[in-house]
Formats: sequence, structure tokens, C-alpha cells
Amino acid sequence: MTNWLPTLITKTPEEGYELAVKLSRIAVKLTQPDAEMREKLRPAYAENADSLIASSQVVATHFATVAAANNYWLESS
Amino acid sequence: MTNWLPTLITKTPEEGYELAVKLSRIAVKLTQPDAEMREKLRPAYAENADSLIASSQVVATHFATVAAANNYWLESS
Amino acid sequence: MTNWLPTLITKTPEEGYELAVKLSRIAVKLTQPDAEMREKLRPAYAENADSLIASSQVVATHFATVAAANNYWLESS
Amino acid sequence: MTNWLPTLITKTPEEGYELAVKLSRIAVKLTQPDAEMREKLRPAYAENADSLIASSQVVATHFATVAAANNYWLESS
Amino acid sequence: MTNWLPTLITKTPEEGYELAVKLSRIAVKLTQPDAEMREKLRPAYAENADSLIASSQVVATHFATVAAANNYWLESS
Amino acid sequence: MTNWLPTLITKTPEEGYELAVKLSRIAVKLTQPDAEMREKLRPAYAENADSLIASSQVVATHFATVAAANNYWLESS
Repeated sequence: MTNWLPTLITKTPEEGYELAVKLSRIAVKLTQPDAEMREKLRPAYAENADSLIASSQVVATHFATVAAANNYWLESS
Repeated sequence: MTNWLPTLITKTPEEGYELAVKLSRIAVKLTQPDAEMREKLRPAYAENADSLIASSQVVATHFATVAAANNYWLESS
Repeated sequence: MTNWLPTLITKTPEEGYELAVKLSRIAVKLTQPDAEMREKLRPAYAENADSLIASSQVVATHFATVAAANNYWLESS
Repeated sequence: MTNWLPTLITKTPEEGYELAVKLSRIAVKLTQPDAEMREKLRPAYAENADSLIASSQVVATHFATVAAANNYWLESS
Repeated sequence: MTNWLPTLITKTPEEGYELAVKLSRIAVKLTQPDAEMREKLRPAYAENADSLIASSQVVATHFATVAAANNYWLESS
Repeated sequence: MTNWLPTLITKTPEEGYELAVKLSRIAVKLTQPDAEMREKLRPAYAENADSLIASSQVVATHFATVAAANNYWLESS
């Protein structure tokens, strides 16, 4: 996973949101490096409302960081 | 989902809140892209007090970001 | 629900706290618009310690936002 | 509950922490105004490890707000 | 518990982290003042993965506050 | 565990993320110092979707702190 995060700067808010999603998923990969096991767990959260909400919470926390890093994309908006 | 988030800037706090709700839901869509499955899961959280509270927590986190981006709408208030 | 949030500015910290409570509840209303269903769910959280704590967490997150918007009411204290 | 929060400013970090605890509890009171019911729920969380941790999380969120309001008590330390 | 928190300033990041752990535990003590009961609850969280993660979340929230108070120890690093 | 956190400053965002992961794990070690017990608990969270999401949440909170400490690595990006 070398160089997966060269910068927190993105051109647009959408790209910033996508980066937040990526940041959320990397932690899962680091704790459970076995891709097959992660795939096995996928239905357990993608089909569970509470897990989806919890995932969304992680994204929200990372999005706050990415948005601040980009000064809320004020210059480009 | 191209261009669903052109800016974090909104005219009013209400619109900022609505954007926070939207930001909360997008993460769910990205994790569970199947609209039918999401519809199926809907009662599981819309009729469950704890899920509603957890959803509200995600909105609160995004609202903090949107409010900061808008400098708390101080100029327009 | 038009114009339910004209501003984040409040005269006192207490009013700021009340606004945080309101902000917490609006997200629940938006996810579960059926007032009767919400009323039905009320005992499920108002009589459950963990739900009360989770609700308090949402209020805390919104209060942080409202307090920052008001520069912590430093001028009025 | 008039005037229960005249200011976020406290003389010391300890008093700030106590205020954070107070802020955590008020939300519970507002959601469950019945004191007898709250007393009944007390063992459910005071004797449950996960509830105690969740309570501590709410206090942490409020303490962040109170600490920022007091500029981390830098002048008095 | 007088004077348990004279300042948020610490000499090093490690000491700041230790302070964050302390801040997390004090809230538990205030909600469950009975030391014997706390000792009884200890295995319930120290041997439960989810409780350990939740505890770590509280520490993370307090560490954010302590780190900000110390301006991230930039001067001493 | 002396000197495990000499600084919050990292050269790159990736290293900052790794530090956030480390910060998340230290709290678990401090609450459950028995390495054998931690090893025993590992499957309980590494094979549980909700635990993985909760772990990712802790990392997100620490990453916010580390990113702020590094001023979002703006100078090096």
C-alpha cells in the first residue's frame, strides 16, 4: 500500500468525499488484511442498516478532516 | 453520481442542514449501491429508535463541517 | 419545515443548548417523517439508558457547532 | 431549568470537566424528564461497562467544547 | 478528587496521551463512584473487543483536546 | 512503552495515517495489557464487520488530530 495517500488536497468536494471513503476503508484493510475474509464480511454490513450508518459515520469524520485540509474548497467554489 | 456536491456553501443554515443529510446518505449509497436492497433495509432503521439516533449522529458530524465551511452563516444572519 | 433554522446565533449558552437539542431531533424527523411512528418509538429510547446516552451524544456534537458559531458566548459572558 | 448554563467559562480545567459532565446529563433530562424513571434506569448504565464508556464519550465531546471556550485555560496554567 | 487536573499542558505527546486516558477514566468514576463495582465490571470490558475499541474512541476524543491545548507540541518537537 | 510517541509530525499523509492507527491501538494495550488476552480477542473483532467499522472510527478521530498537527501536510504536497 505504498503511496496510497500522496495528499489530502482534492480538486473538488466530490473528490474530497471519495477520499474520505477511501480513508475509511484503509483502516479496515489494515486490521483485516485478508481480502477473502473482508469479502466474506461484506454482506454482514452492506445488508445491515446499522452497519451502513456506522460506516457513514466514519466517512463523516474523515470528510471533516479532508474538507478542513482543503479549506472547504472556498477558492474553487 | 457526477457533480452531486459542487460546493459546501449554502445560502442558509437550513440548506446547510439539508446538505448534511445528503452527505450522510451518500456514504450509505456508496457502500450499498443496490437501491432495492436499501429500500428493503429502510424499515429496519426508520422504525428503530437507536438507528434513528445513529443517523442523527452522522448528520450532526456533517453539519459541523458544512457550518464551518459557511463560517456559521454569520454574514447572512 | 420552512425557516426552522434562521440562524445559529443565540443570546445565551442555554438557548444554544436548546438549539442543539432541536438540531438533533430534526434529523430524526427527516428520516422518519411519520409523527405517529415517532411517538410509538418514543418509549423505546426514553426508557432505555443506552438510547438516552446516544441521544445525548448527538446533542453534544451539535452543541459543539452552535458554541463555535457563537464564539462560545465570550462577549456576553 | 432556567439559567443552568450562564457561561462556558470556568476557572480551572477541573471545573470545566465538571461542566462537561453536567452538559452530558442535561440532554438525558430533556429527553426523559421523569426523575423517577431516570432513577430506575440508573443501574442499567452505572453497572454496565459499555454504558459507562458511552457516557464517558459524551463527556469527552462536551469537554472538547468547554476546553476550546476557555482557550484550554492557557492563561491560568 | 480535588486538583486532579491542574492543567492540560504536558511536556511530551506521550504524557498528553496518558492525560487523555486519565480524562476518559474520570467520567466513569463520576458515574460509578463505587470502586468495588468498577473492579467487578473490569473484565466485562477488558476482555471484550468492542468495549476496548469504544474505550479507545473516548481516549481519541480526549487526545484531540489535549493535543490542541498543547498546540500539538510543535515547539518541543 | 517509553518514548513511543516522540512527535505528531510525520513526513507524509501516509505516515500520519499509520501514526493514527498506532494511536488507536495503544489505548487498547493500556486497558488490556495482557498480550495473550489481546491475541485471543483478535478474531472477535478482525472477523466482525461492526468491530472493524468501530476500529476505523477510532483511526478517523486520531487521523483528524495528526492531520491538524501537520497542518494537513500543505507545505509538502
